[in-house]
Amino acid sequence: MIRFENDYAEGCIDEILEKLVATNYEQTAGYRVDDYCKSAAKKIQDYCNKDVDVHFLVGGTQANMTVLDAILRPHQGVISPVLGHINVHEVGAIEGRGHKVIALSNGDVKADEESKLLPETLESYLDDFFNPLDWHKVQPGAVYISHPTERGALYSKDELIKIKSICDKFEIPLFLDGARLAYALVSEENDITMEDLAKYTDIFYIGGTKCGALFGEAICFTNDKYNKDFHCITKHNGAVIAKGRIIGIQFDVLFTDNNYIEKARKSYPYAMRIKEAFKKKGIEFIVDSYTNQQFPILTNQQKDFIESQGISFNVEKKLDENRAALRFCTNWASSEESIKALEKAIGVM
Amino acid sequence: MIRFENDYAEGCIDEILEKLVATNYEQTAGYRVDDYCKSAAKKIQDYCNKDVDVHFLVGGTQANMTVLDAILRPHQGVISPVLGHINVHEVGAIEGRGHKVIALSNGDVKADEESKLLPETLESYLDDFFNPLDWHKVQPGAVYISHPTERGALYSKDELIKIKSICDKFEIPLFLDGARLAYALVSEENDITMEDLAKYTDIFYIGGTKCGALFGEAICFTNDKYNKDFHCITKHNGAVIAKGRIIGIQFDVLFTDNNYIEKARKSYPYAMRIKEAFKKKGIEFIVDSYTNQQFPILTNQQKDFIESQGISFNVEKKLDENRAALRFCTNWASSEESIKALEKAIGVM
Amino acid sequence: MIRFENDYAEGCIDEILEKLVATNYEQTAGYRVDDYCKSAAKKIQDYCNKDVDVHFLVGGTQANMTVLDAILRPHQGVISPVLGHINVHEVGAIEGRGHKVIALSNGDVKADEESKLLPETLESYLDDFFNPLDWHKVQPGAVYISHPTERGALYSKDELIKIKSICDKFEIPLFLDGARLAYALVSEENDITMEDLAKYTDIFYIGGTKCGALFGEAICFTNDKYNKDFHCITKHNGAVIAKGRIIGIQFDVLFTDNNYIEKARKSYPYAMRIKEAFKKKGIEFIVDSYTNQQFPILTNQQKDFIESQGISFNVEKKLDENRAALRFCTNWASSEESIKALEKAIGVM
Amino acid sequence: MIRFENDYAEGCIDEILEKLVATNYEQTAGYRVDDYCKSAAKKIQDYCNKDVDVHFLVGGTQANMTVLDAILRPHQGVISPVLGHINVHEVGAIEGRGHKVIALSNGDVKADEESKLLPETLESYLDDFFNPLDWHKVQPGAVYISHPTERGALYSKDELIKIKSICDKFEIPLFLDGARLAYALVSEENDITMEDLAKYTDIFYIGGTKCGALFGEAICFTNDKYNKDFHCITKHNGAVIAKGRIIGIQFDVLFTDNNYIEKARKSYPYAMRIKEAFKKKGIEFIVDSYTNQQFPILTNQQKDFIESQGISFNVEKKLDENRAALRFCTNWASSEESIKALEKAIGVM
Repeated sequence: MIRFENDYAEGCIDEILEKLVATNYEQTAGYRVDDYCKSAAKKIQDYCNKDVDVHFLVGGTQANMTVLDAILRPHQGVISPVLGHINVHEVGAIEGRGHKVIALSNGDVKADEESKLLPETLESYLDDFFNPLDWHKVQPGAVYISHPTERGALYSKDELIKIKSICDKFEIPLFLDGARLAYALVSEENDITMEDLAKYTDIFYIGGTKCGALFGEAICFTNDKYNKDFHCITKHNGAVIAKGRIIGIQFDVLFTDNNYIEKARKSYPYAMRIKEAFKKKGIEFIVDSYTNQQFPILTNQQKDFIESQGISFNVEKKLDENRAALRFCTNWASSEESIKALEKAIGVM
Repeated sequence: MIRFENDYAEGCIDEILEKLVATNYEQTAGYRVDDYCKSAAKKIQDYCNKDVDVHFLVGGTQANMTVLDAILRPHQGVISPVLGHINVHEVGAIEGRGHKVIALSNGDVKADEESKLLPETLESYLDDFFNPLDWHKVQPGAVYISHPTERGALYSKDELIKIKSICDKFEIPLFLDGARLAYALVSEENDITMEDLAKYTDIFYIGGTKCGALFGEAICFTNDKYNKDFHCITKHNGAVIAKGRIIGIQFDVLFTDNNYIEKARKSYPYAMRIKEAFKKKGIEFIVDSYTNQQFPILTNQQKDFIESQGISFNVEKKLDENRAALRFCTNWASSEESIKALEKAIGVM
Repeated sequence: MIRFENDYAEGCIDEILEKLVATNYEQTAGYRVDDYCKSAAKKIQDYCNKDVDVHFLVGGTQANMTVLDAILRPHQGVISPVLGHINVHEVGAIEGRGHKVIALSNGDVKADEESKLLPETLESYLDDFFNPLDWHKVQPGAVYISHPTERGALYSKDELIKIKSICDKFEIPLFLDGARLAYALVSEENDITMEDLAKYTDIFYIGGTKCGALFGEAICFTNDKYNKDFHCITKHNGAVIAKGRIIGIQFDVLFTDNNYIEKARKSYPYAMRIKEAFKKKGIEFIVDSYTNQQFPILTNQQKDFIESQGISFNVEKKLDENRAALRFCTNWASSEESIKALEKAIGVM
Repeated sequence: MIRFENDYAEGCIDEILEKLVATNYEQTAGYRVDDYCKSAAKKIQDYCNKDVDVHFLVGGTQANMTVLDAILRPHQGVISPVLGHINVHEVGAIEGRGHKVIALSNGDVKADEESKLLPETLESYLDDFFNPLDWHKVQPGAVYISHPTERGALYSKDELIKIKSICDKFEIPLFLDGARLAYALVSEENDITMEDLAKYTDIFYIGGTKCGALFGEAICFTNDKYNKDFHCITKHNGAVIAKGRIIGIQFDVLFTDNNYIEKARKSYPYAMRIKEAFKKKGIEFIVDSYTNQQFPILTNQQKDFIESQGISFNVEKKLDENRAALRFCTNWASSEESIKALEKAIGVM
């Protein structure tokens, strides 16, 4: 089977395994105070052009849960787009920490924007909530967005700046989930850099799991108002690994030789070829994505045909009895052969 | 520096890295439904001689937090020895899930037993609590022990059977933390097998992090009364990794060729040599440990001397201004050279 | 000022204060095991024609939080209509206990149904969720509805039976919030009795705070699958009052001489007169309510005029710059004079 | 039966019921913004000689849970004496909010001090914890004491000042539970005033439930670093009652005509008479209490005899097969007749 169902079907980039092998018998201190964690943090700071405080966690849900646990007070919730990962795909991990996910939808906007939190949606909600303060409702204490979104959409730098300035106006931190950040950075439609993230968010993270690592996410606090005792809160959430260097080494390698971006680069042209192949067959999409995830709308018959060719994918959303939006992902490990196989299957479906 | 401060200073056994390299570009399904997870589970079941339900988590605190979240009701707490990891070293991860750790001490017993939960201590507490039920207090809803304990002590099979039968009498599950299980299994003083654990606990876990893996713990439910929806609860706790196979592969290797035990085997004679070296110098211990952790009582001068030889250790407990109990650990990666260096330092301190 | 803004502006029915005075120096056992609590429970059981297990709590949010804490497992959430009190007006008390409120909207239905959870909405969601189980999402572990709803709407007996049978099909408990139950029971449009509630819910509660008591809600477990150790869970939630009899006495009085219904009875004709007065002036409503809450849509000018007459109300929802839906409540303490004053104000606005 | 088992067996002081009757049909705003709440707060501020921020909650466990929820961060716990109410008698309500109760014992001190947190115990723990910070353990984020303690002991003003200065040194708030405050204030051995509490704590509360009210506790924030959004957090904990005035009226009456102290005054001489009666018979006590709770040590035979005279009490602690420490409480409602009956029973036991 050729798997397009997600972007985490393989292991990691070769350089990571090589470094794990090379350093295997070195003895290091536990809990992220080793030299590899320090080196990785330094390299990330260089990319950010800022002394961000870097912490290494294992996975995305864990990162979201732990950061929000740290920054929210008990009566506060986090604003998220309706399709946000924290609202839909974390089995209530945020609520498990006591906080409501305040899911905002943008109303009538074009489908491409559906997975985003638009600045005007955010501002209108916060204006209503705080003027005057509605104490019967959960107080918004953070804003969560991801780049790219769950549907592969990208914020523009302009939108990011607007969202940050709204957050600042209400003194609410902006937290950006970059689980698939590499796939945004390599998109030709993206105009946001890591330096921008360090400038226009309060906390963001650099996804490793989906972007070339075995696992791991690098949390970056860009505002030192929010990271007090974060390491203790990490342990409190069961999110510290004893051999912290295992994640440190991975990010050290990812941020050496520009690997984080270079290894992910091919995901973009491959994703565009998949898009093109579907378009040629007259297939529509639920969102016009310019990142590694593509969501074409197929009939059951077309879907079954693709499957019959030994190609796997995800069903993103059933639309009616006969049609569904599917998800096809490319990633750092995608091969020319697999893309060709998919193009061929699409061509004859 | 030669590190004896803990048992997680190195990477993992070579066979694990070899397998990670060999399988790196295989595509597998996410979230522990891949063939490596299945194969590892099968091998563990063979060791247990029972169809235990196996789940792979990342670390010990996470394992404790997630299992107790799954098995306790809101008004319940977990009984633990005072020195239990969950009571002392998890920054309140269990309380963070809403549950009190009911820490029981054994009263006046010899020091070797201090880190254990003695059957009579447990029975007496439960008898008092339930006859009649004291509804003002937290209800005991689980019993937690570890084998070996935080101080390297071992339960006898007889004690384990007694504890289990007390738990059964009160219909409370017994949960055994095996973060250092390999170091118990290779001790000449140990008479508990994995088959016993599967028989005389309701849930136990096999520690990977400290016993030859990069990270990972294998949770085994031996009683199907307690594992309902456990996978969902794992995700709810941010404890699922996308590339589940990374842990599956590690346990598959650990339970191939008896690696889990064979690799750890040398930890025992090495630990006994350390003990002997201290004894020869007339040094006393806070506990007479027959596993990989040794806790000699040194004066500040002796402690400083060892340190000056480039050897690191942990301070377990300050006893007075001039003396402290230290911790020296051996593990699967300990070398003849490092043991000799330590013996030499002790000999001339 | 004449207050129509809510239904809890006054104290309680005279008979309650009389009984509190008469019994003031009696000594009783604490924590709801006194004779008044027992007598009240017995009377409620008679109304239910069933041996429901009755617990007395202080307020509605507390009741919702405590019951859901008791019946949900960690990875589960509670289904609620979007406008449900638990979703909107409890500052995240349910999430504070770790559980997501899964807010379902009915799609395109007439406004009168907007605040309800329609059987078809529920069934469709549960069918999708469990076929096959979507383990990435919060598992529905309870269904919450209120009668009447936050917007004064009533379920029909037929709808209640349908909802219960859907819950039974998926083995999920149905929990009904009766904070304003008395105002449903006295409505001419209502066909649900307390006996029906005992038959077609798993847990429901009888609101005291808004229906003639100083405070207090009587939780009734109609299914003994869900009340295990509930008293302990109540204490765990800070929801036990030492002098339990204070609530016991109130419900004992409310269920003597049919007070619970008789005292509330006038709320219905008074509410209908308010509705009629608005209708005569051509005013529309966001919902055609047949209970004690009325939601007319007024212009700012009309709103200001009513206010200028010394009459207070709530703003339920701003509709645009110039119009809002207001809330006017009647209750057990409403007087002919106050209704006349409001009718007069409406007549000349 | 004559009840000495607790101090909450009766209703409330007459003046409260009179005021509830007199104000019953007044219409007031909900949720503690009514004039009675304001008036009560003003009177309490006068007693404190400080503009403390006053909030009215229903009961003691709820007050402890809500205050600690507000002031602790996720990885923090609260230091408490081992016998503290939050550690023993709240079914884990504090842990239910995610926080460990760090129970400190004073080591070898005389029995009278056992229920207190001695300044040296506190200082030593905090010094150890923070020098250097032990990030594996729960961080102390608040200190909890009660006055009087669970065993009727009193802090001296000097001790209170010392505890506060230790808390200040470590920037940790001091929270004082005054559930039985009135019984401290009327003790001849007490030298702490409400003004002292306002000066030497960060938060304290004035117990109503056990001191003449039907229910209710008045939380006083003396340091505005800790009360931000407290009202929202109260609602989040299900601790707000709709008719807030019901508690406001009670405290307004309690702080009129010095009722809070005057009504409780007789509890002291009555308690001393009970102590004297036992002493005359050569009975010993587990603590030499100078407040309304007395804890004599009786044999089973003596205990049974007292019971046979129609007098009830609590068993505080079983000492051995034949002896137990019992609890006898006086309160604002104790009568000369009941005390005489108890004296008589003791005299002939």
